Amino acid sequence: MIDVNRQFHLAARPNGLLAPSDLRLEQAALPSINDGQALARVRYLSMDPTMRMWMADVQGYMPPVAIGDVMRCFGLAEVIESHHPHYKRGDKIVGLTGLQDYVLIDGTEKRPFQKIPPVPFISDTAFLGVLGITGLTAYFGMMDIAKPQKDETLVVSAAAGATGSIAGQIGKIHGCRVVGIAGGPEKCKWLSDDLGFDAAIDYKHPDWKQHLAAATPKGIDINFENVGGKIMHAVMDRMNHHGRIVLCGLISGYTKEDPALASFGVVLVKRLRVQGFIIIDYAERFMEATTQLGKWKMFGKLKDRETLLEGLEKVPEAINMLFTGGNIGKLLVKL
Amino acid sequence: MIDVNRQFHLAARPNGLLAPSDLRLEQAALPSINDGQALARVRYLSMDPTMRMWMADVQGYMPPVAIGDVMRCFGLAEVIESHHPHYKRGDKIVGLTGLQDYVLIDGTEKRPFQKIPPVPFISDTAFLGVLGITGLTAYFGMMDIAKPQKDETLVVSAAAGATGSIAGQIGKIHGCRVVGIAGGPEKCKWLSDDLGFDAAIDYKHPDWKQHLAAATPKGIDINFENVGGKIMHAVMDRMNHHGRIVLCGLISGYTKEDPALASFGVVLVKRLRVQGFIIIDYAERFMEATTQLGKWKMFGKLKDRETLLEGLEKVPEAINMLFTGGNIGKLLVKL
Repeated sequence: MIDVNRQFHLAARPNGLLAPSDLRLEQAALPSINDGQALARVRYLSMDPTMRMWMADVQGYMPPVAIGDVMRCFGLAEVIESHHPHYKRGDKIVGLTGLQDYVLIDGTEKRPFQKIPPVPFISDTAFLGVLGITGLTAYFGMMDIAKPQKDETLVVSAAAGATGSIAGQIGKIHGCRVVGIAGGPEKCKWLSDDLGFDAAIDYKHPDWKQHLAAATPKGIDINFENVGGKIMHAVMDRMNHHGRIVLCGLISGYTKEDPALASFGVVLVKRLRVQGFIIIDYAERFMEATTQLGKWKMFGKLKDRETLLEGLEKVPEAINMLFTGGNIGKLLVKL
Repeated sequence: MIDVNRQFHLAARPNGLLAPSDLRLEQAALPSINDGQALARVRYLSMDPTMRMWMADVQGYMPPVAIGDVMRCFGLAEVIESHHPHYKRGDKIVGLTGLQDYVLIDGTEKRPFQKIPPVPFISDTAFLGVLGITGLTAYFGMMDIAKPQKDETLVVSAAAGATGSIAGQIGKIHGCRVVGIAGGPEKCKWLSDDLGFDAAIDYKHPDWKQHLAAATPKGIDINFENVGGKIMHAVMDRMNHHGRIVLCGLISGYTKEDPALASFGVVLVKRLRVQGFIIIDYAERFMEATTQLGKWKMFGKLKDRETLLEGLEKVPEAINMLFTGGNIGKLLVKL
């Protein structure tokens, strides 16, 4: 057992992709715990595009991480010592662990940790992916905003990512024609061959817009949008009247200086509904979603995949992978 | 009685504001009518920003006007001769008359003409304004999309225009704090003094953004957007989370080469709902809207105003006025 707690502190606000000096690895003493507290060893860190937003000096749906603070991050941890009434040694929990080896739980957390229940056929790390924030995001974006109908055409961008891959499969469950946009043949093959997407478009191919047109002969009814920029423009060009755009993310803009621009003209003429949403607004309905996602997963209706890096020191590289297309499915760092 | 029919034909697609050569005035013979036809003398032409879109070579909610065709336009006409079972001499009608002195009605119209009923205290031209397309647009945009609630803050751009002035008053009827954005002190005075808006912001004033901030101390819940561009950006900056943007028009972009750009980033973080809509989708509910608007008007809850030009030859100048801020309230050309 390590007797120090390695922590990544936010040292500087990144400009574009993370530079090595933006996160500083420091060693703190392992905290000793008092009554009402528990200590947990972080086992997996969840790499999410939203981390890049938390690093910027913008007031988003959560305040930015202050310079010098331990960087915010979702993770899965195991309780190793507890004087806390709700946790016992061996409990596995998910929540905002931060980028560190150990997390102290003192009951004052604004967003408390959730215990992972033992569920047959479901791995612990699923609670960071298909049953975690990224799966829940796909669930509410599809079920509450897109409301997919049979035979509608759904296009998902960043379709091989943790959220996009689940959103597309929820579209298949509801009888949609599902087209995914992803970068590179390996991701596209996974979407078509393993996840059952009707088509997968490699946006790195020079003719990808023609491929998108060919794959959406009846236009596009729903866009589950994770990327923004040029990809969103191309999808909007093929949207049908009264289409719905679930604006889930704009990762093409997170690492750039200029905001993600797009034309509202087409929203008007096509009577589109563009709905921004953030998963934390649905906190009270997480149980409903987890139950449904878990059922679909157990009955083989949802497949998931993880890309795993090992070692806390890999975190900066992992964060950048989210924006350079390096991962397929959920990206995790194992400690 | 004139025995020729003067008509404005679309001669060229405008680049920016209309050039004199874009519409060509021609004289046609007065049509003689057969069985099942009627002839009506156009009395008023309704000048609407959408005309500029119909002139462009873009597939909007209606096909563009073909080069050489009589320019499409809403108008009010009086039947002067009829062999048509539904119309008799003296009937006043509204519909797509086109930019001409006389319109032939043969029963094959895709969008049939509506007869104006005699209503006490309501002028005929109200059926081109507060009870016409512009009033109906305000009604459905507010009632179906914005759904205004008591004490919410509503900001209307192009607030002194035909649609904006009605939208703002519908907000007042529902107990909103209503702030209008318009160009110049005369329009702002009308909004504040006559229409009862809580504040009116003159966007031509150098400190207008500070004025907007001061007028919306609790942020903005609803944006009834007619303009786009810089005005929309400034309003979006002050939108509250879960605010609604009724995207009714983007007139700042209609006369420019570049599309109306705006940032979707704020839509995401603020969970905004941006809904594009076009009034023709509500055709089956026009009677409901006209009845309600008529009641409000008769009980003094809605005030309207007209800017009137005289003579068909004034049409090109009138169309440009819509984009240069020349009119207050409904802009009409009297023939």
